[in-house]
Amino acid sequence: MPDLSILQSFELSEILSEEPDRCRLTLLGYLPSTWNASTDTENRRLRAIILIERNAFASEHNRRTFEQYSWFAAWISSQASEIKQPQGDVKINVICPATDVHVRKYTKQKSILVQETPELYRRIIAPYIANLPPERTRWVTEILAGRSEQDKVLYSSSDYIILPDMKWDLHTTDSLYLIAIARDPTLRSLRDLRGDVHLSLLTSIRQEAYRIVGDKWGIGRGGIRMWIHYQPSYYHFHVHIVNANHALPGMGMAVGQAHLLEDVIALLKINSDVFKVMDLTYGLGEQHGLYEPMKTAQSEVDWIS
Amino acid sequence: MPDLSILQSFELSEILSEEPDRCRLTLLGYLPSTWNASTDTENRRLRAIILIERNAFASEHNRRTFEQYSWFAAWISSQASEIKQPQGDVKINVICPATDVHVRKYTKQKSILVQETPELYRRIIAPYIANLPPERTRWVTEILAGRSEQDKVLYSSSDYIILPDMKWDLHTTDSLYLIAIARDPTLRSLRDLRGDVHLSLLTSIRQEAYRIVGDKWGIGRGGIRMWIHYQPSYYHFHVHIVNANHALPGMGMAVGQAHLLEDVIALLKINSDVFKVMDLTYGLGEQHGLYEPMKTAQSEVDWIS
Repeated sequence: MPDLSILQSFELSEILSEEPDRCRLTLLGYLPSTWNASTDTENRRLRAIILIERNAFASEHNRRTFEQYSWFAAWISSQASEIKQPQGDVKINVICPATDVHVRKYTKQKSILVQETPELYRRIIAPYIANLPPERTRWVTEILAGRSEQDKVLYSSSDYIILPDMKWDLHTTDSLYLIAIARDPTLRSLRDLRGDVHLSLLTSIRQEAYRIVGDKWGIGRGGIRMWIHYQPSYYHFHVHIVNANHALPGMGMAVGQAHLLEDVIALLKINSDVFKVMDLTYGLGEQHGLYEPMKTAQSEVDWIS
Repeated sequence: MPDLSILQSFELSEILSEEPDRCRLTLLGYLPSTWNASTDTENRRLRAIILIERNAFASEHNRRTFEQYSWFAAWISSQASEIKQPQGDVKINVICPATDVHVRKYTKQKSILVQETPELYRRIIAPYIANLPPERTRWVTEILAGRSEQDKVLYSSSDYIILPDMKWDLHTTDSLYLIAIARDPTLRSLRDLRGDVHLSLLTSIRQEAYRIVGDKWGIGRGGIRMWIHYQPSYYHFHVHIVNANHALPGMGMAVGQAHLLEDVIALLKINSDVFKVMDLTYGLGEQHGLYEPMKTAQSEVDWIS
């Protein structure tokens, strides 16, 4: 487990993004190779991304680490300005060693909204998903196979598991964030959902999520917001389960990326094939692998009628 | 037009909400009656709500006022803390005189998600809308009748108008925020949309919105995110038009409140009656007029299958 004090050795090379309206700062730089015991020690410095974010944390240190991802909760005091600010707790995420993919992901990028017809899904999205390297979702298959994070699993059945999301600090109920991951590896995304096949999976996730948050955290009916991302960040079907009063910064719960689980269930009840036949519109950052092909393909999409 | 310097006379009575993660502070207190020339001067102090929010503003003073709502852009310097913060521009909204409804609206409140079946819409929501006092939407009818904000109107037809939203500072393209308001007073919300009747209205709004943001602000295809709130804050059908890269704090663009215009169009093409027949799920704050009846009615809703 890396130690927070090593962060004092961080050498800043670039500010990847400053988001004062989200109270978030993303830094690129280097950490000593002692950060990661398993790394080749020939490399004296490891590239690292550090995200510092003001958050609704309890004021105690808290650490979690999984492969190259580490999370800390930390307490900083801030000078009072003209407007008296409450003392600020921050969350520090460290990604070390950071790959080029990580650097791209955390560099502030412009997004556009694109429309995906069923035809564009077949021609562009399906081959893109099929060609993704399996390593990208190894962390998911490790969890599903019972080889990692097993002490965290809150529910497990032959259809799916529920466990805390890695963004959650595990104890602040106000920002509760769980994730349900389906076991079926062929169910890649929202596009694959069919009412006659998957309604029981989705309603079971909803029911178990409510049972868990009720039993463990005293959250009642209506107390959680559940959604599915499209495009998702990994193509192994999963549902986000978050305290209904928790406002995430950024686009994570925004229309154009998130689809409310309740709406998805309601629509599948009306039309089993709705996600097979409907056009789906979503934001893509300019460094997303689908950005260029989907941007080019927009000339084929009817934006008028 | 009120003057910013009068804010120095603000007497704080209560902090309605502190949201450090959104960099927002909401204050309740009093302003001198000179704030509002039209007010009965017997009242020496006027109740006022002040919202201070860090925002992506240009650093010049900017003012707008409409009835009891005023907006300022202001510049504050903040002390550097351990993490060097960029100098912070803030937006200051003043609501004065503030009614009890305003105070409730801006007091931090817990929300729950409720499910609305078509039957609950008929029994609870439709009568609620029918009984709302017409004064609540007088500002909308004044705009539609051409009696206010006419210098702001960007587009007007027999079906709808488009104008800047009052939250926008009118010049920062990154946070562009327009609103399209339908003229038909009987079209109250998402629930009323029917494919055979309203698809042409919705696709026309989409087309004109893109034309306007392209012509006036150089924003290209995919550069705006458009959504419809359900429940909306006023029951006169309107569409939010916002820069696709602008992440609003709070729940304004979140699933469980917002519905992407593109999704709404796609669903209405598949099923003209989809919003007549589907269950709709959304967050309600505990001080919303629908909170108690809808919370009570949840016992009738099937949350299992």
